[in-house]
Amino acid sequence: MPAAFPHEYRCSLKWHEDRQAKLNGTRQTEIQGGPPPQFDGRPGHWSPEELLLSSVQLCLMTTFLALLKKTDVHLHDYESETIGILDKTREGLRFTAIRVSARLDADDPDQAAELLQKAKKYCIISNALNVPVELEIRSLVS
Amino acid sequence: MPAAFPHEYRCSLKWHEDRQAKLNGTRQTEIQGGPPPQFDGRPGHWSPEELLLSSVQLCLMTTFLALLKKTDVHLHDYESETIGILDKTREGLRFTAIRVSARLDADDPDQAAELLQKAKKYCIISNALNVPVELEIRSLVS
Repeated sequence: MPAAFPHEYRCSLKWHEDRQAKLNGTRQTEIQGGPPPQFDGRPGHWSPEELLLSSVQLCLMTTFLALLKKTDVHLHDYESETIGILDKTREGLRFTAIRVSARLDADDPDQAAELLQKAKKYCIISNALNVPVELEIRSLVS
Repeated sequence: MPAAFPHEYRCSLKWHEDRQAKLNGTRQTEIQGGPPPQFDGRPGHWSPEELLLSSVQLCLMTTFLALLKKTDVHLHDYESETIGILDKTREGLRFTAIRVSARLDADDPDQAAELLQKAKKYCIISNALNVPVELEIRSLVS
């Protein structure tokens, strides 16, 4: 059962050096953050762009697993790759597309795929975005 | 100079166990992700909610530092805390507010605060959200 609503989530950031920062949640391992190489940042740090995409695909997975729990479908494996496109638009620099490509292996692949589509509808991160999130589902079993 | 647009960002996720996943970017340290305690998850993992808030405040900082670079203003210190409110609405569970509280120490605090307000306008993560991002700026020097 989820905790009573509204939920409050908290995170903190501490500027470190150059354009790098240390990111903390409640009790998690610290994340080293900074601009991505596309904006002259160093590789090896998590960028805002990558944190956003990770948030989307993690929320999709956790929502999917919550829906799956209510069924008899057994999941053997699950993975996803997410691509975000950032482009110049009339309004300025904007994410124009976010594409999640999920691959799953379940004993009822059709029902699992249906639940994953449903999870996208309920995903609180996708629903907080004004960018369309596209979902492609493939089977991990060839 | 940023790389030519459009930019493409990529992340991957691999389901691990229970509702946990391993999150990877291009060359970053892996993040352990899962649902937050508010949704019966284990503390100690990064949740989608916290990754989203971290993305917002990191983007605000990197955009601010990019604007600051074009001025003579010298920054001594910077930190922020971000709160996200998730609540039941007519449309379902939605983020209803994201509040960034930034504290800075600069040799020209007024100009620095002005640049941080401007950074919010250009922040590509805030601009990808349909949730209003509120920004409060305080001085780190008492």
